[in-house]
Amino acid sequence: PTTKLPKVGTTIFSVMSQLAAQHGAINLSQGFPDFEGPEALRERVTYHMAHGANQYAPMTGMPSLREAIAEKVERLYGCQVDVETEVTVTSGATEAIFAAISAVVRAGDEVIVFDPCYDCYEPAIEINGGICRHLPLTLPEFNIDWQLLKSSLTPRTRMIIVNTPHNPSGATLSKADLDQLADLVRDTHILLLGDEVYEHIVFDDQPHNSLLTHAELAARSFVVSSFGKTYHTTGWKVGYCIAPAPLSVELRKVHQYLTFSTATPLQLAIADYMKKDPHYTNELPAFYQQKRDLFCALIRDSGFSFTPAKGTYFQLVDYSAVSDLDDVSFARWLTVEKGVAAIPVSVFCAEPNPSMKLVRFCFAKGADTLNQAGARLCQL
Amino acid sequence: PTTKLPKVGTTIFSVMSQLAAQHGAINLSQGFPDFEGPEALRERVTYHMAHGANQYAPMTGMPSLREAIAEKVERLYGCQVDVETEVTVTSGATEAIFAAISAVVRAGDEVIVFDPCYDCYEPAIEINGGICRHLPLTLPEFNIDWQLLKSSLTPRTRMIIVNTPHNPSGATLSKADLDQLADLVRDTHILLLGDEVYEHIVFDDQPHNSLLTHAELAARSFVVSSFGKTYHTTGWKVGYCIAPAPLSVELRKVHQYLTFSTATPLQLAIADYMKKDPHYTNELPAFYQQKRDLFCALIRDSGFSFTPAKGTYFQLVDYSAVSDLDDVSFARWLTVEKGVAAIPVSVFCAEPNPSMKLVRFCFAKGADTLNQAGARLCQL
Ligand SMILES: CSCCC(=O)C(=O)O
Ligand SMILES: CSCCC(=O)C(=O)O
Repeated sequence: PTTKLPKVGTTIFSVMSQLAAQHGAINLSQGFPDFEGPEALRERVTYHMAHGANQYAPMTGMPSLREAIAEKVERLYGCQVDVETEVTVTSGATEAIFAAISAVVRAGDEVIVFDPCYDCYEPAIEINGGICRHLPLTLPEFNIDWQLLKSSLTPRTRMIIVNTPHNPSGATLSKADLDQLADLVRDTHILLLGDEVYEHIVFDDQPHNSLLTHAELAARSFVVSSFGKTYHTTGWKVGYCIAPAPLSVELRKVHQYLTFSTATPLQLAIADYMKKDPHYTNELPAFYQQKRDLFCALIRDSGFSFTPAKGTYFQLVDYSAVSDLDDVSFARWLTVEKGVAAIPVSVFCAEPNPSMKLVRFCFAKGADTLNQAGARLCQL
Repeated sequence: PTTKLPKVGTTIFSVMSQLAAQHGAINLSQGFPDFEGPEALRERVTYHMAHGANQYAPMTGMPSLREAIAEKVERLYGCQVDVETEVTVTSGATEAIFAAISAVVRAGDEVIVFDPCYDCYEPAIEINGGICRHLPLTLPEFNIDWQLLKSSLTPRTRMIIVNTPHNPSGATLSKADLDQLADLVRDTHILLLGDEVYEHIVFDDQPHNSLLTHAELAARSFVVSSFGKTYHTTGWKVGYCIAPAPLSVELRKVHQYLTFSTATPLQLAIADYMKKDPHYTNELPAFYQQKRDLFCALIRDSGFSFTPAKGTYFQLVDYSAVSDLDDVSFARWLTVEKGVAAIPVSVFCAEPNPSMKLVRFCFAKGADTLNQAGARLCQL
């Protein structure tokens, strides 16, 4: 019989990380740090494993972690959420996204995403029989084209997925953007999914304008984040979703059968650490901004052109002055021949634009790694 | 707008564990042990966290864990699997089941399950637009009715889900059953999903007849298991799926967007422990059989009738001599009024049979807990 998912290949993150490993390239492709999170965080895992926290967590998440999350979103975004009914811990943001989409997208429903967009949205939509409508972001700023969005809404539009700070571009939504979005969805049943995993990595003294800061939007949103990017523990796979109780009810109907629950000792450790050091996240912007600035300085004399990222730990660059290759070929060439792995951006677009010659570098790396990569990138 | 999943309630495991906690009942409902796994296993988590294993695992799983799994299934089931292309680590068996179903079940496809059946199969089938066909197992032995199965196959039958040892009954498939199954699916395109999470908990010196022991079946099967039941770490959520390369390709297309990967330090710890003590699993049957025998002895003079479970860590009992209540009401009454929580069996059936008065107890508990529960159950 025919394959159910003929269009789905292996995620670019696996492909590029494997290629980087094969060729001993510096891996600036898949997004993860090459440094460690707080030792005190790991110590709490050891503690909880030794104190009986090795059996199923509640399906909705450990209460202490849900409380820490609620405390955080109230403190940072002024958003009051009910710990019992509006916060759900998931096995990474990826699971939260899949669960949110599966919970509400029915066969024939349309979901709007903005290209370039992270690669897990569309498969989740399609598995649920939904239709993924790709709207291009406006270059070079990667802004949402509100006019285009407005004209793309239909009675079948079920959900709009917004990702801020935006991966791969680092663009961020402004307060005015949130108001625009609110204007468009007001008086509709359209739901929102906010992918905000880089919420604590916003630069140049700008705030993160979470959907949770905007009561009208929050009332119809699934807001997803994760601890992997925040605590330098991408391999722990602990994330969460905040949504109004009626939406959380639906989310949990799926979550309970997707993974049921998430590693108990890791949840407890993160909860303890958040309580012990709630202001840890205040230092993240400066920490990563320094890396962004270092990386941008290192590639200033390369052939790349770029605008420094406003958020995330990724830097997009235009390589058109360096090579005529399409971006997939260029990323492969850069990895195999020049020893630096990057992510091509066209794989995040429904309709690759051959004139869009962009690749993404992850700068969540130690200075030595960035220096070495920078040196290689200046010699193309 | 209408709810997408109106039929889906909260999983019975959450409901009963919460009720047990509320009323301070002994929780023999949700299946998890109240004792710890090997200390050496936890020690390896601490070790790997301290040695840089905190970032994304490969999407397919850590190589050392995939190797340990392959070594195990060759040793125990005589099944050679390719580590690279046929073994995928998942965030618990639940994720593996959801991914396998989502990978191959298309809108309109029929999937056959045997009632009473574990509660995560049907929602996964329905989210994918499939049709779940429930066939009753034959009481009192909970055998598959091969004649009924044969007559239930249609050109749209895409998959048959078999669960051995069977939750909640503890029934196991025999070698003859596997041959029957092979006869039925030969010359069809029907796929199999084997839920074998209790593979190491089979009693009375019987072998576990894994689908992997049967080459003809293995060639069309997703075989799912987990480390939670085996190493007394249900809260770690590390499972896996073994499938022939072409099926694993499809499975991974979904897995990569469901969770992407599973907690790295937990994977590495399990791999180390499996290597260090490969014969650990040989001792599990005796360990749990002793608990089964203790629990059965303790309730021998209760009003329950039962046949000792052949596998799993669950004991099914018929309470019809004790109460006229339906099983859901009886399980609630037992929890609230008598201080012992159990799982009603009708929730695992599409068509609850009011004359089927069965509840399930988990005997994966220390002797004190079992003694106390036994005493309460003898006083109904
Ligand atoms: C799930 S691996 C991808 C990590 C990531 O968020 C990225 O590289 O964009
Ligand atoms: C995922 S919680 C349910 C645990 C279990 O396998 C059971 O109790 O049957």
